[in-house]
Amino acid sequence: MCGIVGYIGERQAQPILVEGLRKLEYRGYDSAGICVFDGTALRVRKTAGRLSALEEKLAAAPLPGTLGIGHTRWATHGRPTNENAHPHTDAEGRFAVVHNGIIENFQALRERLVAKGYRFVSETDTETIAHLLADLYDGDFVGTVRRAVAEMKGAYALAIVCRDEPDKLVVVRQASPLVIGVGKGEQFVASDIPALLEHTRDVYILENGEMAVLTKDGVTITKTDGTPVARDVFRVTWDLAQAEKEGYAHFMLKEIHEQPKAIRDTLSGRLEGNRVVFPDLKLSPTELAAVEKIHIVACGTAYHAGLVGKAAIERLARVPVDVEVASEYRYRDPLLTEKTLVIVISQSGETADTLAALRESQRRGAKVLGIVNVVGSSVAREADDVLFTWAGPEIAVASTKAYTAQLVVLYLFALYLAELRGTLSEAERAGLVAALQALPEQTEAVLGLAETMKGHAESVASATSLFFIGRGLDYAVAQEGSLKLKEISYIHSEAYAAGELKHGTLALIEDGVPVVALATQPNLLDKMVSNITEVKARGARVIALAMTGEAELAKTVDDLILLPPTDPLLAPVLAVVPLQLFAYHAAVARGLDVDKPRNLAKSVTVE
Amino acid sequence: MCGIVGYIGERQAQPILVEGLRKLEYRGYDSAGICVFDGTALRVRKTAGRLSALEEKLAAAPLPGTLGIGHTRWATHGRPTNENAHPHTDAEGRFAVVHNGIIENFQALRERLVAKGYRFVSETDTETIAHLLADLYDGDFVGTVRRAVAEMKGAYALAIVCRDEPDKLVVVRQASPLVIGVGKGEQFVASDIPALLEHTRDVYILENGEMAVLTKDGVTITKTDGTPVARDVFRVTWDLAQAEKEGYAHFMLKEIHEQPKAIRDTLSGRLEGNRVVFPDLKLSPTELAAVEKIHIVACGTAYHAGLVGKAAIERLARVPVDVEVASEYRYRDPLLTEKTLVIVISQSGETADTLAALRESQRRGAKVLGIVNVVGSSVAREADDVLFTWAGPEIAVASTKAYTAQLVVLYLFALYLAELRGTLSEAERAGLVAALQALPEQTEAVLGLAETMKGHAESVASATSLFFIGRGLDYAVAQEGSLKLKEISYIHSEAYAAGELKHGTLALIEDGVPVVALATQPNLLDKMVSNITEVKARGARVIALAMTGEAELAKTVDDLILLPPTDPLLAPVLAVVPLQLFAYHAAVARGLDVDKPRNLAKSVTVE
Repeated sequence: MCGIVGYIGERQAQPILVEGLRKLEYRGYDSAGICVFDGTALRVRKTAGRLSALEEKLAAAPLPGTLGIGHTRWATHGRPTNENAHPHTDAEGRFAVVHNGIIENFQALRERLVAKGYRFVSETDTETIAHLLADLYDGDFVGTVRRAVAEMKGAYALAIVCRDEPDKLVVVRQASPLVIGVGKGEQFVASDIPALLEHTRDVYILENGEMAVLTKDGVTITKTDGTPVARDVFRVTWDLAQAEKEGYAHFMLKEIHEQPKAIRDTLSGRLEGNRVVFPDLKLSPTELAAVEKIHIVACGTAYHAGLVGKAAIERLARVPVDVEVASEYRYRDPLLTEKTLVIVISQSGETADTLAALRESQRRGAKVLGIVNVVGSSVAREADDVLFTWAGPEIAVASTKAYTAQLVVLYLFALYLAELRGTLSEAERAGLVAALQALPEQTEAVLGLAETMKGHAESVASATSLFFIGRGLDYAVAQEGSLKLKEISYIHSEAYAAGELKHGTLALIEDGVPVVALATQPNLLDKMVSNITEVKARGARVIALAMTGEAELAKTVDDLILLPPTDPLLAPVLAVVPLQLFAYHAAVARGLDVDKPRNLAKSVTVE
Repeated sequence: MCGIVGYIGERQAQPILVEGLRKLEYRGYDSAGICVFDGTALRVRKTAGRLSALEEKLAAAPLPGTLGIGHTRWATHGRPTNENAHPHTDAEGRFAVVHNGIIENFQALRERLVAKGYRFVSETDTETIAHLLADLYDGDFVGTVRRAVAEMKGAYALAIVCRDEPDKLVVVRQASPLVIGVGKGEQFVASDIPALLEHTRDVYILENGEMAVLTKDGVTITKTDGTPVARDVFRVTWDLAQAEKEGYAHFMLKEIHEQPKAIRDTLSGRLEGNRVVFPDLKLSPTELAAVEKIHIVACGTAYHAGLVGKAAIERLARVPVDVEVASEYRYRDPLLTEKTLVIVISQSGETADTLAALRESQRRGAKVLGIVNVVGSSVAREADDVLFTWAGPEIAVASTKAYTAQLVVLYLFALYLAELRGTLSEAERAGLVAALQALPEQTEAVLGLAETMKGHAESVASATSLFFIGRGLDYAVAQEGSLKLKEISYIHSEAYAAGELKHGTLALIEDGVPVVALATQPNLLDKMVSNITEVKARGARVIALAMTGEAELAKTVDDLILLPPTDPLLAPVLAVVPLQLFAYHAAVARGLDVDKPRNLAKSVTVE
């Protein structure tokens, strides 16, 4: 995960590159760097740390020129240091490269080049590319890139400049995203569209195995073997202003508060009376009714949404569902038949492992339904069918509104399937649809808990360990709550199926250890009370979440947070919101950079 | 989870009760207590802490008498205090009760009794029973117990004495184990058989919903409603000496070293040439070949064995497998058909949630196969079919040899099923059988790593957080390694599918955080190397496990532990052993009581 940008034209490249990197900083911020051709040589400035550090260097010593590339790094191979920052060049300074992704065979390539006498100054896989280009160079920039790419295995997007042919910028896409912006007398390249919007709304979206040669006056797209490719220009219609903070201290907080709208938008146009309608779904009712097994495949937060989706689909439509982590699924030789439907879930639609699982499932003959937030993303384009979450752009690394919107799509899909299969009475369906329609307003009400959750968050901010417990759907939400907390507050939190505590984790409970207990499921309440009593008996401090009507619980726990009553199946949507606020305020209380947690990036486009 | 004992006869009860509790201490050790009838009154001695604390009290003030009950507690309702220790009595001292399990409706009963003026001195559910008996008492001890039991919901085993009828000891079993030992002019009762062996080998095993009245001269068993029950005496043939430490510092260390034997014994008699034979299996080859879906249900370590079982069965026999935590499975309305086989795994065969899942599956019409270590246990008796692990008695709370023996049974079962379904070539089967047969000797070799693992364990003993990472089967083993470490060392460790790190947990990796990376699976090695490189880039200290032949990995990690080469599918058996040693030595280095971790009990017979 990194962000790359490039410019060729008549304007000064430096400010355009830096501004583009700023838009891409959510993709990585371990180091940043740019390379500009000054008329004679390729000049590089780069540094460990945030983009602001690079800007200071550039203010002291700007790089003039109208051709350049830039990079914001999320370290994979090699630590976040000055040496490992991109761009990387060969020893003679003929080539400069920026790179997003991983070159899997870099070790072998590096050893071969070292044996030939090439000297490496960084620990990165990227530097290998620069030396490989130098080694293969025969006076033809584009042909050299083509031959180098033929030797590289892995997933990557590249932007490359060559001192000897400064009228060209060459880019390559292999499984990492890359978008070209088309201007007048100038061209742009970036890892995603927002970085281009200041300059143009006309873009080419490169596909895997393609490269492009950009000149001031045009763009030539080919496959990496040189076969010509015809690609239409894609016109971007959405609004960059949507991606601003609108007065909130952080994107995350803004996005938490956007959830009522995200839920409402995601429901919009999909309910007619008590029926779910999916106007754009290509899978026919007959095909869907014949499905005997569903695999939900996703990573991180989207995986947690899948756990709730399993419960909804099994309970309402009586189709068995497996939920699997994409990085595991793709390598485990899953058993698929033509009656298996694979559902992949990804906010960005670019998650590398999820995308690979999608392709592997299709290769084995399964139909794939994508649940995605980004129109035009790889998952949206490659899945056989797509149901979009209309959550709007999500900028904070910690996903919030995308998760609740994913839940809503999964509920809708479960209801849709249940109607096709006749597994739900009219009355049950009507009840659930009414409950779904009440969610935006109820979520708004739950946001009123912000100050309460801030207090609880501040009280645990110095904890080193914290546990989330729950049963059934509450366990699924507990996992999401725990992930939220750990990814932005760096408190080691862990979620446990409450019934499993006695099989080991209970050993970690001692006086004062904070435990967040979810108890929103009426049929499991007695069992949860027993589990809460167990951790209380060991001295835990218990903050519990339950539905209004379960106020009795206050006798057993230290703090009780009550949620508006809904169908227990939908409780995760309401229960997760206080947990998001809890995580947010814990991170703020610890003085951390909420929107940019260390080591993490927004969409994980490497494996 | 608690242990209960009782005695009626002509000898002094106190030493018999205390000796019985010593044998049951593995079931709980938060507090201990006994009650003896001294000819006039019921006298109680009890105290928080280990049995030794009670013995001190008794040495200072013994309790004379020939009728008594005793208890060793594992706290569920109420903290481990003197007041909460059993036995509990009513205000007048007419009844004394010891209890294992949970009275689910105790809150309602307690409130009713408080309203009537009964004063409670403890926080336990058990005390409710004593007052309830007092409240219902009409001069008839046995009839009063019967009426009290009719009002109690939950899972429990009880032993009760009454001052007014000191010629009787009444016991009740409802879903918690209870065994009666038959003597000459004396009778015994205990939570399990080892506590009786010093006195008798003739036992009655009570079933759920039964009670018994013990007098010096005999035992009368009835249902709790009074219906007579005819029960045969069961003659115990095994040897108590098997459960001694044999010179090891702890049972856990002894049991780790018993694994070569446990694996050899578990294989024994089940291989004929390259074929797996199960002489005792009742499910016919036709029934098994028709199975379309397998659910593996278990808790804790047995659940982790199930994860490996899933991989083995899916890979070899191509039958899809779901693995679920029992406490979740039983409440989630699982989709079962007559072609679903449910496999439950439990060392003790008494794990409450696993047993409940077994019964729920049978109620829904599925056949249940038990994988169990204890002959005569509830799972062994109630499952439609049983495959025993021949690991011998396991005393340490942290399971080791039971886990590896469970793996071996699952491999054998996968091979058996594969042959029935014709999914494996003769050559592949032969290769795996040979690899299985090599495991005892290879495990012996891996035990040679003890000193190395001790060194690593000591180096992480002061860590507050630690991570285990792996992919595929390595992820399953990582989960078991993490559980082992946390349950006995109280270090907050967590296992992660290596590919999921980037979706959140990577935020917790900073300079010096220990990471144990499992890399035994050749087809996933490249991906694991990428993940290891990522955590290294954040400063983690990486201890890796791989198979001999992957010594290259040493370049990437801080410490590399090499295992003997085996089929990758069988690698978990060899990989878990160093992790068990690692956990053991970490706990020893931290000065903890390895065999009796705080808050945990050996077999979890409450939910």
